[in-house]
Amino acid sequence: MGLTIGIDVGGTKVAAGVVNERGKIVEKLRRPTPSSDPVQTVATINEVVTELLGRHSVDAVGLGVAGFVDEDRAHVVFAPNLGWRDEPVKKAVEDRLGIPVVVENDANATVWAETRFGAARGQGHVILLTIGTGIGCGIVIGGQLYRGRWGMGGEAGHYCVVPDGRVCGCGNRGCWEQYASGNALRAEARKFARRSPAAATRLLQLGGGTPKGIAGPQITRAAAEGDPAALRCFNIVGSWLGHGMADLAAILDTGCFVVGGGVSEAGDLLLDPARSAFEKSLTGRGHRAPAQIVLAELGPDAGLVGAADLARR
Amino acid sequence: MGLTIGIDVGGTKVAAGVVNERGKIVEKLRRPTPSSDPVQTVATINEVVTELLGRHSVDAVGLGVAGFVDEDRAHVVFAPNLGWRDEPVKKAVEDRLGIPVVVENDANATVWAETRFGAARGQGHVILLTIGTGIGCGIVIGGQLYRGRWGMGGEAGHYCVVPDGRVCGCGNRGCWEQYASGNALRAEARKFARRSPAAATRLLQLGGGTPKGIAGPQITRAAAEGDPAALRCFNIVGSWLGHGMADLAAILDTGCFVVGGGVSEAGDLLLDPARSAFEKSLTGRGHRAPAQIVLAELGPDAGLVGAADLARR
Repeated sequence: MGLTIGIDVGGTKVAAGVVNERGKIVEKLRRPTPSSDPVQTVATINEVVTELLGRHSVDAVGLGVAGFVDEDRAHVVFAPNLGWRDEPVKKAVEDRLGIPVVVENDANATVWAETRFGAARGQGHVILLTIGTGIGCGIVIGGQLYRGRWGMGGEAGHYCVVPDGRVCGCGNRGCWEQYASGNALRAEARKFARRSPAAATRLLQLGGGTPKGIAGPQITRAAAEGDPAALRCFNIVGSWLGHGMADLAAILDTGCFVVGGGVSEAGDLLLDPARSAFEKSLTGRGHRAPAQIVLAELGPDAGLVGAADLARR
Repeated sequence: MGLTIGIDVGGTKVAAGVVNERGKIVEKLRRPTPSSDPVQTVATINEVVTELLGRHSVDAVGLGVAGFVDEDRAHVVFAPNLGWRDEPVKKAVEDRLGIPVVVENDANATVWAETRFGAARGQGHVILLTIGTGIGCGIVIGGQLYRGRWGMGGEAGHYCVVPDGRVCGCGNRGCWEQYASGNALRAEARKFARRSPAAATRLLQLGGGTPKGIAGPQITRAAAEGDPAALRCFNIVGSWLGHGMADLAAILDTGCFVVGGGVSEAGDLLLDPARSAFEKSLTGRGHRAPAQIVLAELGPDAGLVGAADLARR
């Protein structure tokens, strides 16, 4: 097989790329996601694929979708950010364009890309954690993408780290993503600015004067400048990240954690406290090799690169 | 291959069996574990194997050991209950007896037996939880035993369910096995009997009059009689069990949980609250199939049956 198309279907945009066997993007297109109407989103997918097929000879299409995908990789069972329930996406695109289609969860596509072409090249036991609004998670085991019994593996963002803890969008309380995500970072900073405005001068300045104005990029900027209040927020959130990675390593004896997503742009500001908490919390430490904890390398294109490569298989 | 020998090496006894291809035990021997001296334990293993080899034609030996086993299945890296560190057990037995030996973690051997011949026959995604003093855990993924990157996967008993919670023997705090084990059940019952002796009359009676006398079998007996205090203990411990299973299912999308170990002799007294907590806590419930939660079928012989079958492969 030569070229395949990978598509990252998110809540705000559809990004499509023609990708070669080495994971390089030959051409890329972007469209805004039209609405929460699956019919219109599928129409947009068909449109970008048709346009790319006009210029490239392509063997298959891989869709990476932010949602639960069934074990046959054909239906999107539930995609809260897209407003989809039980959508037969594979069939909808194949019927229209007559090209083989594979549907995959977007974090699965991303971990696959990072394992094949990115930060975890050559590793067999990899967990990807995308630290954005929440925590996306994809798992590679023995060099294979791990899907679980019904295709729904890797929802590590919703394992419980604090019993009866913070309310989560999934309906539970205390989910990991309420403590180790961009939302958690922002909440820490705003809470701190409300409580101790004098100590949060720089954060408030960058946020336009009010706690509500403080968002992720401002916290990262202040922390990079050495602002103690911003560093404190990264320490808290990074520690929760490392705490959870130690739990995952206890269960799965993971070789490599790849950390991506918007918050990971802070680099070691996030990873240093995560590594430190991981080393402190790992059960059996001293009797086992520690996992590597590294930054993702492929950036926001990882999802489409991974989806394209999975379509090839 | 016809017959193999499986040996379960625990802190108190060495149990060895000649096992056929269908997982049936043809002959079984037991010896007390001599001491925490690995040389003497290996001598005992050699002794029972030599005796069984005298009566059966056997192709290989599998050892199931309560400890961390390395990825080559040759060394026991760390076995706290046996007092072993970095013991080259495979070589020690092979050199003496000239027969192929495989070393495996005992929970791994047990989950393999239950998946091949027991409660999870025909299932591909299985987690075994042995609820005894602590929690033993073995994982089967895609029909294969899961070992992790360095052979140390499946330490789910030491993932953290309560930050800064109860102290655990592993050196951490809040480990799952401090909340969902035989030790936890006993601690609940004794605490309750100290606080509310009038409500714990039956437990105290079975325990010989003092909270200290109350142990697992007495709590099970009282609960089976319908004693509310004992049922309360099972509800608490069973709920923690289900809570943790929901976390594991979020991460791994497990198809089947097999619950074994001493405490599981209480059957539905333990599993009913576990199932109820699992169903309440599973993320994405309503959009996914729930895992099966079943009792182990092979009892205390599962470890040696699994070790024997793994030696065959």
